Amino acid sequence: MSDHVYKKVEIVGSSKTSIEDAIENALAECNKTLTHLDWFEVTETRGHIVGGKVGHYQVTLKVGYRL
Amino acid sequence: MSDHVYKKVEIVGSSKTSIEDAIENALAECNKTLTHLDWFEVTETRGHIVGGKVGHYQVTLKVGYRL
Amino acid sequence: MSDHVYKKVEIVGSSKTSIEDAIENALAECNKTLTHLDWFEVTETRGHIVGGKVGHYQVTLKVGYRL
Amino acid sequence: MSDHVYKKVEIVGSSKTSIEDAIENALAECNKTLTHLDWFEVTETRGHIVGGKVGHYQVTLKVGYRL
Amino acid sequence: MSDHVYKKVEIVGSSKTSIEDAIENALAECNKTLTHLDWFEVTETRGHIVGGKVGHYQVTLKVGYRL
Amino acid sequence: MSDHVYKKVEIVGSSKTSIEDAIENALAECNKTLTHLDWFEVTETRGHIVGGKVGHYQVTLKVGYRL
Amino acid sequence: MSDHVYKKVEIVGSSKTSIEDAIENALAECNKTLTHLDWFEVTETRGHIVGGKVGHYQVTLKVGYRL
Amino acid sequence: MSDHVYKKVEIVGSSKTSIEDAIENALAECNKTLTHLDWFEVTETRGHIVGGKVGHYQVTLKVGYRL
Amino acid sequence: MSDHVYKKVEIVGSSKTSIEDAIENALAECNKTLTHLDWFEVTETRGHIVGGKVGHYQVTLKVGYRL
Amino acid sequence: MSDHVYKKVEIVGSSKTSIEDAIENALAECNKTLTHLDWFEVTETRGHIVGGKVGHYQVTLKVGYRL
Amino acid sequence: MSDHVYKKVEIVGSSKTSIEDAIENALAECNKTLTHLDWFEVTETRGHIVGGKVGHYQVTLKVGYRL
Amino acid sequence: MSDHVYKKVEIVGSSKTSIEDAIENALAECNKTLTHLDWFEVTETRGHIVGGKVGHYQVTLKVGYRL
Repeated sequence: MSDHVYKKVEIVGSSKTSIEDAIENALAECNKTLTHLDWFEVTETRGHIVGGKVGHYQVTLKVGYRL
Repeated sequence: MSDHVYKKVEIVGSSKTSIEDAIENALAECNKTLTHLDWFEVTETRGHIVGGKVGHYQVTLKVGYRL
Repeated sequence: MSDHVYKKVEIVGSSKTSIEDAIENALAECNKTLTHLDWFEVTETRGHIVGGKVGHYQVTLKVGYRL
Repeated sequence: MSDHVYKKVEIVGSSKTSIEDAIENALAECNKTLTHLDWFEVTETRGHIVGGKVGHYQVTLKVGYRL
Repeated sequence: MSDHVYKKVEIVGSSKTSIEDAIENALAECNKTLTHLDWFEVTETRGHIVGGKVGHYQVTLKVGYRL
Repeated sequence: MSDHVYKKVEIVGSSKTSIEDAIENALAECNKTLTHLDWFEVTETRGHIVGGKVGHYQVTLKVGYRL
Repeated sequence: MSDHVYKKVEIVGSSKTSIEDAIENALAECNKTLTHLDWFEVTETRGHIVGGKVGHYQVTLKVGYRL
Repeated sequence: MSDHVYKKVEIVGSSKTSIEDAIENALAECNKTLTHLDWFEVTETRGHIVGGKVGHYQVTLKVGYRL
Repeated sequence: MSDHVYKKVEIVGSSKTSIEDAIENALAECNKTLTHLDWFEVTETRGHIVGGKVGHYQVTLKVGYRL
Repeated sequence: MSDHVYKKVEIVGSSKTSIEDAIENALAECNKTLTHLDWFEVTETRGHIVGGKVGHYQVTLKVGYRL
Repeated sequence: MSDHVYKKVEIVGSSKTSIEDAIENALAECNKTLTHLDWFEVTETRGHIVGGKVGHYQVTLKVGYRL
Repeated sequence: MSDHVYKKVEIVGSSKTSIEDAIENALAECNKTLTHLDWFEVTETRGHIVGGKVGHYQVTLKVGYRL
């Protein structure tokens, strides 16, 4: 991170398969409207339960991008 | 919350009457410019004091909505 | 709280009208199966949004009762 | 809050009726001995249970006042 | 989450293969004795080390279910 | 902790003499109804004051046991 | 705790012998100038090291008393 | 803060010279696109190290502005 | 810190120029009415924004002094 | 964990493929210079973003080992 | 603490008898390899349960020493 | 931060003049014995009071360096 100003937004991605996939889904969505995405921080890992198994993971990220 | 991506924004609502009313005021403001509002989380409850009484409540919410 | 042992359970009450009502609903449910309910601590205040307004409040409590 | 020094004290107000009323009771007590009360921050919401219902709410506040 | 009362229990699942597998193991165990499992929240991720590698993951979850 | 599933319960023990004694009292109570108690984590240390001295200590524990 | 207003003050007691003794020293000092001391909450346990041993314990308490 | 609704955004400012300068840089960037900036809260202070010295400070702020 | 009892008070100092100056202003105010000031701990750094720049810093300290 | 003394060190492992792989990389590095590695605790999960996807995961662990 | 640089290390001491004894055991171990030990901060108090009683206490300390 | 393993150490720097100077003093000391210092995170800002003024600042940092 060099001598710039960054903004952090908080995004929740979900996935039926894994925590990593939920993170990628969140980033892909951010990448549609924001440029210069730089880093992320996981702030919460949750999920929905269906039939006694994980229905989908819900991972909250703070995503930092350069302004 | 199903298999989507959500964003959380942080909003402070205020009210002279109650904590619940401050929450409703914050949501009403969000609802003007955002669609698919889904849930909120209270992160802070504060207020201003006038004449030894509550002047107004200030309630900070994270509001999640579907992208 | 005197010289006894207590247990805390974590309960989420909901209500369409107020935070206080969500707390009472959670306590009423606890009171069906537990005795000697003694105190509660609010650990989280959230809610569901319907049409840009609070659909219902969801208040998480730790409820302490004497064993 | 302008260019002054403030002190924060921590107060627990209680009420049989509501969280807002417990806050007002705490402020009323502070107002007897302190001047220039300016703002409050809720740090804890608890309560005592009587007969499976809320006996009274106990709300802890930090109250800021100008020195 | 609709207009009901929920209870949260805290469970630690373990697995030799992945964090996701530890979560599934914890849910499978809950599912033996509880009905209406609804959501989970990861509160801690730890593990045991054997021979300089992960022996098994230990993931603590709060599991919410409808009463 | 081997390759099993564990549950954590939250218990408050009290004692007039020491923090350690309050912990032992909490564990003894758990031991009446639960088996395979494995570890504990102190989450809160409080107490009641009588005549300007400690009336009794109140120590909150999370107690982990194998299912 | 009944239907009153309480104040919490933050006190650090020290002792060469034990954590419990540091708590009692803090309460004894409070008891000289305050009345109606009701409960305490330990918020920090630290100490000074002398010659590789505990020189004295320093225990920070919030002490609640009725106004 | 009067009877309005506010939004908080999270911004990271950087500076080679001081923490205060990093804060000003973050605010200057916000001021280009937002109006009614009202207050800020520092949530994180970090930095990059170059040659064993501070290369630049990175200060994360929540910035509140009136909607 | 030797074998004494200490009290902590929470103070907010403000300054137009720097965080350090806000700390000194808070200590100077404490020093008018309290003796034996010993140490401080910064618990919050905030500020007011005027014209897109820092109007003044507001730094909250816990100040410890010997009783 | 038996009747010994342990030390915890804080390590950040990274990986392009998964959170679990980043943990293994951190442990492998610790294992080069430390013996008796016993357990780990994940304290932070972050990552670098490249082209709108996870460039690599960065997982911070506390690693406990017997002295 | 005077005008020096200090390092903090994180150590877990254990004892079958008391929390204080676990702290002393941790410090004794540190004292074998480090000089100028100055202060400690308790960050976690846990323990192992054997036969429904405390098997041993495990107390995590941050130990500060002068470089 | 690229595809490496990093270690974090916790250091307390002090200075009579400013928070920034205390940070630089801590880094300079680290730089004597460690190479590849990469980033720091401020975790605590405290100080000693002399004559009602700041005697010296004490700033705790986590310093990350590449192994």
